[in-house]
Amino acid sequence: MMGIITLTTDLGHKDFYQAALKGSILSLHPTVRIIDISHDIAPFDLQQAAFILKNSYPYFPKKTVHLIGIDSVYNENTKYLALKYNGYYFIGADNGIFSLIFENQPEEIVELSIIQDLKFLHFPLTDIFAKAACHLAKGGKLAEIGEPVTELVQRRVFEPIVEPDAIQGSVIYIDSFQNVITNIHKELFTKIQKERPFTLFFKRNETINQLSWHYNEVPEGEKLCLFGISNYLEIAINKGNASGLLGLQTDNIVRIEFQNKK
Amino acid sequence: MMGIITLTTDLGHKDFYQAALKGSILSLHPTVRIIDISHDIAPFDLQQAAFILKNSYPYFPKKTVHLIGIDSVYNENTKYLALKYNGYYFIGADNGIFSLIFENQPEEIVELSIIQDLKFLHFPLTDIFAKAACHLAKGGKLAEIGEPVTELVQRRVFEPIVEPDAIQGSVIYIDSFQNVITNIHKELFTKIQKERPFTLFFKRNETINQLSWHYNEVPEGEKLCLFGISNYLEIAINKGNASGLLGLQTDNIVRIEFQNKK
Amino acid sequence: MMGIITLTTDLGHKDFYQAALKGSILSLHPTVRIIDISHDIAPFDLQQAAFILKNSYPYFPKKTVHLIGIDSVYNENTKYLALKYNGYYFIGADNGIFSLIFENQPEEIVELSIIQDLKFLHFPLTDIFAKAACHLAKGGKLAEIGEPVTELVQRRVFEPIVEPDAIQGSVIYIDSFQNVITNIHKELFTKIQKERPFTLFFKRNETINQLSWHYNEVPEGEKLCLFGISNYLEIAINKGNASGLLGLQTDNIVRIEFQNKK
Repeated sequence: MMGIITLTTDLGHKDFYQAALKGSILSLHPTVRIIDISHDIAPFDLQQAAFILKNSYPYFPKKTVHLIGIDSVYNENTKYLALKYNGYYFIGADNGIFSLIFENQPEEIVELSIIQDLKFLHFPLTDIFAKAACHLAKGGKLAEIGEPVTELVQRRVFEPIVEPDAIQGSVIYIDSFQNVITNIHKELFTKIQKERPFTLFFKRNETINQLSWHYNEVPEGEKLCLFGISNYLEIAINKGNASGLLGLQTDNIVRIEFQNKK
Repeated sequence: MMGIITLTTDLGHKDFYQAALKGSILSLHPTVRIIDISHDIAPFDLQQAAFILKNSYPYFPKKTVHLIGIDSVYNENTKYLALKYNGYYFIGADNGIFSLIFENQPEEIVELSIIQDLKFLHFPLTDIFAKAACHLAKGGKLAEIGEPVTELVQRRVFEPIVEPDAIQGSVIYIDSFQNVITNIHKELFTKIQKERPFTLFFKRNETINQLSWHYNEVPEGEKLCLFGISNYLEIAINKGNASGLLGLQTDNIVRIEFQNKK
Repeated sequence: MMGIITLTTDLGHKDFYQAALKGSILSLHPTVRIIDISHDIAPFDLQQAAFILKNSYPYFPKKTVHLIGIDSVYNENTKYLALKYNGYYFIGADNGIFSLIFENQPEEIVELSIIQDLKFLHFPLTDIFAKAACHLAKGGKLAEIGEPVTELVQRRVFEPIVEPDAIQGSVIYIDSFQNVITNIHKELFTKIQKERPFTLFFKRNETINQLSWHYNEVPEGEKLCLFGISNYLEIAINKGNASGLLGLQTDNIVRIEFQNKK
């Protein structure tokens, strides 16, 4: 019985916090496999954590337990949850992050009840999340560690504005290659495009009107757009720094206009 | 038979050094579990390494082997040691780091004798520490890899100055959230406080006179103090950069004055 | 059946890409051991990736599978290969990196044929390299996942210029301690030196004429040279920043002159 627990936190790599978390997990479940998804989430940045997790969790084997350690300091209005979604387990504080990751209602949600005096916890990741994660990684049931919950805290995410001949979206993430990722999903694009030619507008004067499949379909140093690994529309420069060279930052607006045949 | 070996080094993540160390360990003990405590210790910074390790080693299962790779280049006056403390194993150079981690005398200490010509080692972490760590992780005894030693090199750590109505301490660590951690332990504070009201003074004009339990007990952007995960007094700003905004750096002085009832 | 897969990529630690890769591997081979060699290779820097891998792969147990994820976006002129060298497996794009790692011809090379429409892959690391790596880590044969190939793309590396009484080389790597590593290998040095005294020249006026064995054989803050863990000539400062203080950067020239006895 091994099981897999992944970790997504803003704890960084410098301090002893993530080591404490891993030690706690191994103390409870010495054979579990621990995989770091990321500890480099910007502090308290739920949008970034959700983007990272949403795009990586489905690659793992079903029943993997995804532990989310972000903005999880105790406060009396925030529940600590464990839930099952799409065959995976997730554990974290109900600060809105779950609503940013999931598109549908989870199969099952419980509020963790394995610790009584939550108020006196110093480090919920080791004190309660690790316990819940090990329970689930060992094959335990959700009902054994908490009370049923039906609603998740909802957090708004900026959705693209859709017109009959246009989609207006925004930049949601800059990756470490400085590729610029927008909130326009491939499915939405395809649905509105209906195979029409398009122009993607961004910044003052920049346009792209060709969809690439790979970064290297344009010469090195040239800009392009594609649906990358995340299936969101991405603006990139072949082997170059798109965010820097094109001046694109998170929250910047991009607009796609589709051309009607005459 | 798995066993756990943790690594605490200043090797960073960019070079091949930590990969060489992990490869060496797996070559000797293919089923051992390797956990990174940190490879981001500032080069040669024994105080920082000790702080990280002291606060994380107890979270691991007993018998975990903690390998310390910092300031361990061969010199004829420094012994390479393996020892047992509080049910855990530690391996490293006797450069003073052990005296910074432990509060009591270890249960058993040996000077490693598994390599004869230490002088010609290029990389003690792979050449000798990895061997000793695998031996212990497999359940081997300390006596089989070295000769008994009774004394550890002692290194001074700045202890707070205690007065009947005050404690004067200093900042020992800034974490990656920019929380400011002092050398004033909860036990010491409690012993001197005797439930009296207190004022914490730092920098020119700053004071705090309330102890919080959680970072979020004050409004966002407000300063607070608490005993955090490490059990040392910590100055923080709720969701803010305390070190930057309050101008607090390592070695800065902080002073607590307790108020006598009239 | 465990097996080891190591990862050497330029994916960084911030994004979801390496988590997606690890998830893919674990989905195919839940008990395999995954070791990060480095994800901090500078984007597309084949020389750096080769230096890191060349110096670390031999520390791992034979049959370890080394997955190389750098400059591997699909293009019709670049083959995806799996090969066996010195008892280890390597997987990556044939962009020249293999010629920078190996000194001899690999024992066996195949072009991966487990995916038909390579052109439509978005992320070859998860879509094809992970599959090949898991096949090999499970003990599968190269012939089962590809067609034989005999030639590797060759990429030039700057070799030192050798004269009867001198070697002229260059800096190829600066490590995270700021040690300066040249392309002059210990074997070459020994062969040309023939035990003669030498002077190492670099920058305008700097010289060293003593070979150290350890960094601490000179006083702290003094410069030295030695053959370090990599067996390449290294210029360092005992507990200091050699690259910064001596102004040495990648591609800078260094020259060793050997002195003939009179």
